Amino acid sequence: MRAWHFAERPEGEPTLDSFDLRERERPTPRFGELLVRVRYLSVDPYMRGRMRAGESYAEPWDVGDVLQGGVVGEVVESEHDRFEAGDLVAGRGTWAEYSVLDADDAAPVDPAVADLPAYLGVLGMPGRTAYFGLLEVGDPRPGDTVVVSAAAGAVGSVVGQLADLTGCHVVGIAGAEGKLEWLESVGFDEGINYKEEDVSAALRKACPDGIDVYFDNVGGPVTDAVWPLLNVRARVAVCGQIALYNATEVPTGPRKLGKLIESRARVEGLLVRDYEDRWGEALKRLSEWVASGEVEYRENVVDGLENAPDAFLGLFEGTKIGKQLVQVGQREA
Amino acid sequence: MRAWHFAERPEGEPTLDSFDLRERERPTPRFGELLVRVRYLSVDPYMRGRMRAGESYAEPWDVGDVLQGGVVGEVVESEHDRFEAGDLVAGRGTWAEYSVLDADDAAPVDPAVADLPAYLGVLGMPGRTAYFGLLEVGDPRPGDTVVVSAAAGAVGSVVGQLADLTGCHVVGIAGAEGKLEWLESVGFDEGINYKEEDVSAALRKACPDGIDVYFDNVGGPVTDAVWPLLNVRARVAVCGQIALYNATEVPTGPRKLGKLIESRARVEGLLVRDYEDRWGEALKRLSEWVASGEVEYRENVVDGLENAPDAFLGLFEGTKIGKQLVQVGQREA
Repeated sequence: MRAWHFAERPEGEPTLDSFDLRERERPTPRFGELLVRVRYLSVDPYMRGRMRAGESYAEPWDVGDVLQGGVVGEVVESEHDRFEAGDLVAGRGTWAEYSVLDADDAAPVDPAVADLPAYLGVLGMPGRTAYFGLLEVGDPRPGDTVVVSAAAGAVGSVVGQLADLTGCHVVGIAGAEGKLEWLESVGFDEGINYKEEDVSAALRKACPDGIDVYFDNVGGPVTDAVWPLLNVRARVAVCGQIALYNATEVPTGPRKLGKLIESRARVEGLLVRDYEDRWGEALKRLSEWVASGEVEYRENVVDGLENAPDAFLGLFEGTKIGKQLVQVGQREA
Repeated sequence: MRAWHFAERPEGEPTLDSFDLRERERPTPRFGELLVRVRYLSVDPYMRGRMRAGESYAEPWDVGDVLQGGVVGEVVESEHDRFEAGDLVAGRGTWAEYSVLDADDAAPVDPAVADLPAYLGVLGMPGRTAYFGLLEVGDPRPGDTVVVSAAAGAVGSVVGQLADLTGCHVVGIAGAEGKLEWLESVGFDEGINYKEEDVSAALRKACPDGIDVYFDNVGGPVTDAVWPLLNVRARVAVCGQIALYNATEVPTGPRKLGKLIESRARVEGLLVRDYEDRWGEALKRLSEWVASGEVEYRENVVDGLENAPDAFLGLFEGTKIGKQLVQVGQREA
């Protein structure tokens, strides 16, 4: 089978040089594991952190290793009595045609609820991140103004729709007109194009009552523009800082802590794995909202395992709407 | 009587030019107010914010106004039935020989518990700030490592002692050897002199288990050195940013939000007035700890209302230990 190996640590923006596609033996599942034929592979911004040797919120990849990532696929061999060959599952796998998954970590996939890729997006890690990040860390109330950066991404688009369901005034920040149109069609009240507009001025206009919740996926200058508008007791959920991930020096910017005294705002980082014991709750509710059409989603599927690095690198261009995925092997019928 | 008026807004570090001592009429209390002969006047770092026209966490002073501040003094005339002439009270007054206080906002002073200046320090606003800021926002547990900046100040010295009472490993950062010696004598486990030591290296040594609670009074480079050591679920209570108060441009520094994802740390600003309905609780407990000697305090008293601006400007030199005060009128017998 083919598998992508981690060839070298990037300096700054990653390139294809970090990836090496090799032929290797199909792995063998041990007790409690599943061998899965990968149908879809997820590429996510947090993986940039895993390319770094140093401290990050995700375990660093070692050079030479097969790259890891979320997958959806079909069980080929099961060494766990909860699954059998032919079952569709989602879990933590590898950038490869076949992956071994820990069965305890694998979730059944129901194609009657949503198509397979959704289990890597709205019904997978990004959806859960949005669910717990917004509802637990952001703690929105009806009438609150909620601002989301990278709003058209896999996490941001769900955050905004959940904020809309909560009765909030929802403002999305994204980098293309097509994204903003889609966001407004799914429940965002206002959209700001950070590549075209003065974000500070646009935020003042879109948030006449200030900002109660900021869900931050990007950091950097967009976040700087949000800061002065934080209301008393505002909540900032720090989910990602994609604007800074490729920095080669320590990124600097305006110091932000003073504003927190005046506003008594709370700023808190989040990792979805902290809520692992409640993932079932998130999946159940998100599935209901997807089934009812209350939460919509978009995917951008790149065809072929051989194009997985391009799909990953595309995350940093910010041109795609929704979840970025790689289809591995044949398209489904 | 004499009173200090706000003469002009400072640019950068304040100077004596911002202050103007004038003769004016002694004010007359209205219904619900007290006329108080001021014995002690408090000067505090937050007053720098009140000198700014723009946004701050304290209401800006208008040029020409009599300066405001915490005072302890003796009631001369009472228009409220809870107080009578001769009572000792603490409350929000002015930089003047006589102040009118809102009786609802004035607290009785008991000289049997502590000397009068203590009611502007450990038993006043700084003590309450330490109490709620550490215990509510910092939320320390026994065994936690607690780091306090401006540790020898009116707030920081109480924070560290309360953390010690809570069973924490307490590390104080201050700018003079004399300060560190005093801090270690009152329960701090380690002291770091930020003017003499490499703060990052000293923190790594003093905090072998990382930092669970950081009580920030200063911001800037000292806070930058704390950041990489924040533990998972660490709490940062942002109380002051004195290192930045005199900045004439927007202060910049390393961007800090990414660390919050990895650590899921919570950073929260605090203002003591948010806890106004619980000030009685703080006063009661702090009074008990002061009476038992479990919480010690130091004061630096400048003699004479005419020297109040110097006392205020001295706050930014960072050479004094404990609460900075001005004695107004005669010393007590």
